[in-house]
Amino acid sequence: MDSDLRRMLAGISTATLTTVLFKRGFRNLFLQGPRLINPRAPRLVGPAYTLRTIPAREDLDRLEAFLDPDHPQRRGIEECPPGHVFIVDSRGDARAASAGGILLTRLMVRGCAGAVTDGGFRDTPELAAMDWPIYHAAPSAPTNLIRHHPVETGVPIACGDVPVYPGDILVGDGEGVVCIPAHLAEAVAAEAREQTVVEDFVGERIAAGHTIRGLYPMTDPANRALLEAWRKERGR
Amino acid sequence: MDSDLRRMLAGISTATLTTVLFKRGFRNLFLQGPRLINPRAPRLVGPAYTLRTIPAREDLDRLEAFLDPDHPQRRGIEECPPGHVFIVDSRGDARAASAGGILLTRLMVRGCAGAVTDGGFRDTPELAAMDWPIYHAAPSAPTNLIRHHPVETGVPIACGDVPVYPGDILVGDGEGVVCIPAHLAEAVAAEAREQTVVEDFVGERIAAGHTIRGLYPMTDPANRALLEAWRKERGR
Amino acid sequence: MDSDLRRMLAGISTATLTTVLFKRGFRNLFLQGPRLINPRAPRLVGPAYTLRTIPAREDLDRLEAFLDPDHPQRRGIEECPPGHVFIVDSRGDARAASAGGILLTRLMVRGCAGAVTDGGFRDTPELAAMDWPIYHAAPSAPTNLIRHHPVETGVPIACGDVPVYPGDILVGDGEGVVCIPAHLAEAVAAEAREQTVVEDFVGERIAAGHTIRGLYPMTDPANRALLEAWRKERGR
Amino acid sequence: MDSDLRRMLAGISTATLTTVLFKRGFRNLFLQGPRLINPRAPRLVGPAYTLRTIPAREDLDRLEAFLDPDHPQRRGIEECPPGHVFIVDSRGDARAASAGGILLTRLMVRGCAGAVTDGGFRDTPELAAMDWPIYHAAPSAPTNLIRHHPVETGVPIACGDVPVYPGDILVGDGEGVVCIPAHLAEAVAAEAREQTVVEDFVGERIAAGHTIRGLYPMTDPANRALLEAWRKERGR
Amino acid sequence: MDSDLRRMLAGISTATLTTVLFKRGFRNLFLQGPRLINPRAPRLVGPAYTLRTIPAREDLDRLEAFLDPDHPQRRGIEECPPGHVFIVDSRGDARAASAGGILLTRLMVRGCAGAVTDGGFRDTPELAAMDWPIYHAAPSAPTNLIRHHPVETGVPIACGDVPVYPGDILVGDGEGVVCIPAHLAEAVAAEAREQTVVEDFVGERIAAGHTIRGLYPMTDPANRALLEAWRKERGR
Amino acid sequence: MDSDLRRMLAGISTATLTTVLFKRGFRNLFLQGPRLINPRAPRLVGPAYTLRTIPAREDLDRLEAFLDPDHPQRRGIEECPPGHVFIVDSRGDARAASAGGILLTRLMVRGCAGAVTDGGFRDTPELAAMDWPIYHAAPSAPTNLIRHHPVETGVPIACGDVPVYPGDILVGDGEGVVCIPAHLAEAVAAEAREQTVVEDFVGERIAAGHTIRGLYPMTDPANRALLEAWRKERGR
Repeated sequence: MDSDLRRMLAGISTATLTTVLFKRGFRNLFLQGPRLINPRAPRLVGPAYTLRTIPAREDLDRLEAFLDPDHPQRRGIEECPPGHVFIVDSRGDARAASAGGILLTRLMVRGCAGAVTDGGFRDTPELAAMDWPIYHAAPSAPTNLIRHHPVETGVPIACGDVPVYPGDILVGDGEGVVCIPAHLAEAVAAEAREQTVVEDFVGERIAAGHTIRGLYPMTDPANRALLEAWRKERGR
Repeated sequence: MDSDLRRMLAGISTATLTTVLFKRGFRNLFLQGPRLINPRAPRLVGPAYTLRTIPAREDLDRLEAFLDPDHPQRRGIEECPPGHVFIVDSRGDARAASAGGILLTRLMVRGCAGAVTDGGFRDTPELAAMDWPIYHAAPSAPTNLIRHHPVETGVPIACGDVPVYPGDILVGDGEGVVCIPAHLAEAVAAEAREQTVVEDFVGERIAAGHTIRGLYPMTDPANRALLEAWRKERGR
Repeated sequence: MDSDLRRMLAGISTATLTTVLFKRGFRNLFLQGPRLINPRAPRLVGPAYTLRTIPAREDLDRLEAFLDPDHPQRRGIEECPPGHVFIVDSRGDARAASAGGILLTRLMVRGCAGAVTDGGFRDTPELAAMDWPIYHAAPSAPTNLIRHHPVETGVPIACGDVPVYPGDILVGDGEGVVCIPAHLAEAVAAEAREQTVVEDFVGERIAAGHTIRGLYPMTDPANRALLEAWRKERGR
Repeated sequence: MDSDLRRMLAGISTATLTTVLFKRGFRNLFLQGPRLINPRAPRLVGPAYTLRTIPAREDLDRLEAFLDPDHPQRRGIEECPPGHVFIVDSRGDARAASAGGILLTRLMVRGCAGAVTDGGFRDTPELAAMDWPIYHAAPSAPTNLIRHHPVETGVPIACGDVPVYPGDILVGDGEGVVCIPAHLAEAVAAEAREQTVVEDFVGERIAAGHTIRGLYPMTDPANRALLEAWRKERGR
Repeated sequence: MDSDLRRMLAGISTATLTTVLFKRGFRNLFLQGPRLINPRAPRLVGPAYTLRTIPAREDLDRLEAFLDPDHPQRRGIEECPPGHVFIVDSRGDARAASAGGILLTRLMVRGCAGAVTDGGFRDTPELAAMDWPIYHAAPSAPTNLIRHHPVETGVPIACGDVPVYPGDILVGDGEGVVCIPAHLAEAVAAEAREQTVVEDFVGERIAAGHTIRGLYPMTDPANRALLEAWRKERGR
Repeated sequence: MDSDLRRMLAGISTATLTTVLFKRGFRNLFLQGPRLINPRAPRLVGPAYTLRTIPAREDLDRLEAFLDPDHPQRRGIEECPPGHVFIVDSRGDARAASAGGILLTRLMVRGCAGAVTDGGFRDTPELAAMDWPIYHAAPSAPTNLIRHHPVETGVPIACGDVPVYPGDILVGDGEGVVCIPAHLAEAVAAEAREQTVVEDFVGERIAAGHTIRGLYPMTDPANRALLEAWRKERGR
């Protein structure tokens, strides 16, 4: 993933991104459920590296399963490329953990960009102190074997009722996570950066006491002129 | 699938099967949610032929998608082997249909054994009149493109919060659907047939006014002797 | 329970009973969730005989548990007095059965008045054919040991988000079940019988094309006169 | 409402209507939740006459409230025009009734086209026997005063998570209810009638053993020719 | 709204207010769902200025809708009177935002008293830093057009399953929001202030190691005497 | 409860405890729902002192109920033994409070070990500042009388969908609460302490950049040797 694109997206809110995506006809790309565990972490930006799970079965999902060096979850932790986001389809089930502190630390150390599940992670007190972005739906102490059987990595998944294809660009902030279809990432980022400039200007004007009428949306040409001046002044 | 096994399973209730599976440590093989649409249909028995879906995306899931002869749902309808059960992981979402009358009729005509989703089917008034077993969670008129994107067939899926592996034996009655791991089907069927005999005997005794004490479970040797006589008499 | 009271309540709808209870300040005595399994069964009327459950635990809730002659569920099935309703607090959890065909048949044969759970029963195809009223929230094949541990009988319970005290009078029809506090049963029944007469009269008038204005509620004295005549004519 | 349009819509399934609406960009016009109470009733077709409710408040929602001749629910029952559908926004709350047998009978006698709520109706055993279409989410005995305060009629409402504007055309079948925006009703009906013809033809072919390939969707010109012949033969 | 009343209510907890309202027969005036976004904000107190929404429809709820100067949401933002609370009936749906940072800032700058929705707001990282009380059910980045269509302001609404009439007094603290019927605000505030004094005294005694027996509730006359002395000492 | 055991458990995470319990066949001992209110409180460890509730009934659950010195909630607050955890079965219903600041302070002053409910507590701003561990599912201002009727103390209960027997050992951290069957507490604590040592070692290695392969689970003998050395060095 291009580092300029990464930097650009790290400066755009998920709210602005969903608006730009809505303009292009997308109504369902904000993950419902996952919240940021560690508010002091840097922004989440990176291509999706997906893990798919189904419900656990008692004869297959025993502790011995992890002895298999090809266990999809464990292999995924080592194979998720640096800069990518490890994202798990946990079927919205947080009754058992999707992963915990040791595996997530390994991802962080390996240079991955963050982790997301629509279930829950365990060891959350430890996770909350990590300087690396992690999103889940609820804290969940029970080991994943109780509810989740990892099936495969690198396939399209559902997460938070959103379709996530491998390589889609995930962007997270303090509000949640949005999933940008890979082929649109550049265009969406560029348009969203423009919109962020406008919103920053509008936000300043509103904070200074101006009415939203004619300003938001910007139907008054006078405001457009002010915006142009403001942009020049700030070089944006 | 062996026709003796099929016949045997068609005579055993899902309640009895879950008890036999529980004895072997399985607590979660009864599908939560799917109900029988057409109560006069024959019993559902057959190996699972699975279809996996994720949430729809507006740019991919348009009516034109069906023009692709390799669209996984449409291909699956033609390729599900006779005698197999077409089962869809709809992520428990019945806000749009998993399939409708035309596709399900095609499965029936092709000799498939039935259809199951943890979402909803459409054309339910028509489905209710079919002499072929169909299970879903709720009637749902909207076309599947609105919520569901079929990804692939023949992979392990979740359905009704139960793990379903291709080839697992699905058995359904008026209560719902149970999923028997493939390698256990013979043994479970045999044990369940035995248990069915006992339950039929117990049921008769209970209906005739006997107490459950010593009979259910059968701790009284006198009852065991009566059972043996009863079995001989009936040749079971 | 007095047989006149029983007969009277069997002729009053749960809708009318909740209105009479509402007049006395009760807003929450209709069980949320339980539905009638067998629509051709006689009306449900009888004092509550309660069974309380908590979630199952793997070391306690094994099949061997039923070998204990004092297992609360099994003992309750034999001790529920004739004419009483066997009602189970299943914590609204229908993922495993609260009981099944054999135990419910035993209750019926013993002369009990019906059975209710806010979870699910198993063997529902068989139950649907019984001539005895049974209410539950959903069909559920898995054996109760998987989710439910019976603790005790004869204590106040929650069922369908309603408080049920032993001896409270349960009344069920095709709509559901209402729980009348024991000390109010006579008075509520008497008032509800009166209201039923009025509603039958009003229903006839409405069906014949009269407006609800002045009739429902009956603010027009002319309608009150007509009602009196109608009652005399029919001896009600 | 034009009687030709009414007749035409009565012959089209809700499934087909949602597909035609989806082609025009509408993804959310099938009511989630409401189900038909009385399967032998005629089809539901008619313009929406809306009633909006908010949660009840103990000081306002007492039995005396109905003494007010302008109580919005009671007034609405008398003012809903013949041929219209009485539809209630009950905020998806079926813990108390939206209305009952007497009021619904009055609507039927007055010539209204049917009734819908996303909550519950009471007196359901009686409603199930009526020859008039009624849809709700669950049977509910408690009087509406316990949960619902009717505010006004004739305003846009939410019902089953769908926007319903007064005058929109509601169409129901055994599957559920779809809400067609008023200005599109003619065009949608015409297109859906065409699609119904095609689906009938396709359904016949499928039942006769033909593959869906090239037929559904109809990409094979040979099938289009057969369709034309079939239409001529049947005069459709 | 009287400034003394405002000041008094700002010193009373929502817990105490619900108890005083319960004494008067009100059981359902605490909003279920909405939580405070910005814990360092001042207390929320003010009359309700209501906005009602229904589900969005694709042909009406496009970005161009905001060009209409009479769009109810945008007009409401400019017309909500200073000192009032802007409260939105979002039907409990937080899948898309009810409003965001720019509009909420405009309300704050205009001197409104706070904002509440039973859905979600967007731009929550920014909102969390505002010194102005905002309550919602969950963070939600998607633009409101995706799910919500604002219909009108100044009408009775449902919010958090509570009836809210325009002018009702909303009071919020770190626990949530309570809605006091307008005509009772003075009396409830006065009684609650008295109860707060008692609770402060009781709290001190309990913290000092006294038993609750005879103290809470205050059935022991000795405690009443101590309370009187304590009040005099503190001039409360 | 032995103070060594208490100290030991206070140093073990709920995540590790659920894994040790899973090894012994327990899949459902982590309470679903309850979260820690006051993150700066000490760890929760202590035997369960249980309180059971059912839904409130308007004639029984009035403010006067608290005048009864034997009211089970109030008596429980005074009788819960020091060192024990006060845990309430609130049936997962947080629409009204399970208790509030005054009662919880009394428990703290009396030397109890903490409080847990699967409903909600009130006075949460005050609770959040207490140096004593409290867990609930959601803040809830309404007085408990509105929804909850306390029935008895010292009986087995359900809490967060988990079976809790009086005397079971409850352990809570920032993630949630786990319930250890009383007879297993010593053995589970000992095994979990061992596992904690291993996890601390593994965590250090992972943070230092080592792969999980052969380390987690520890299949590589070299890692076992390193672990032994590490333990000696630290005297663990």
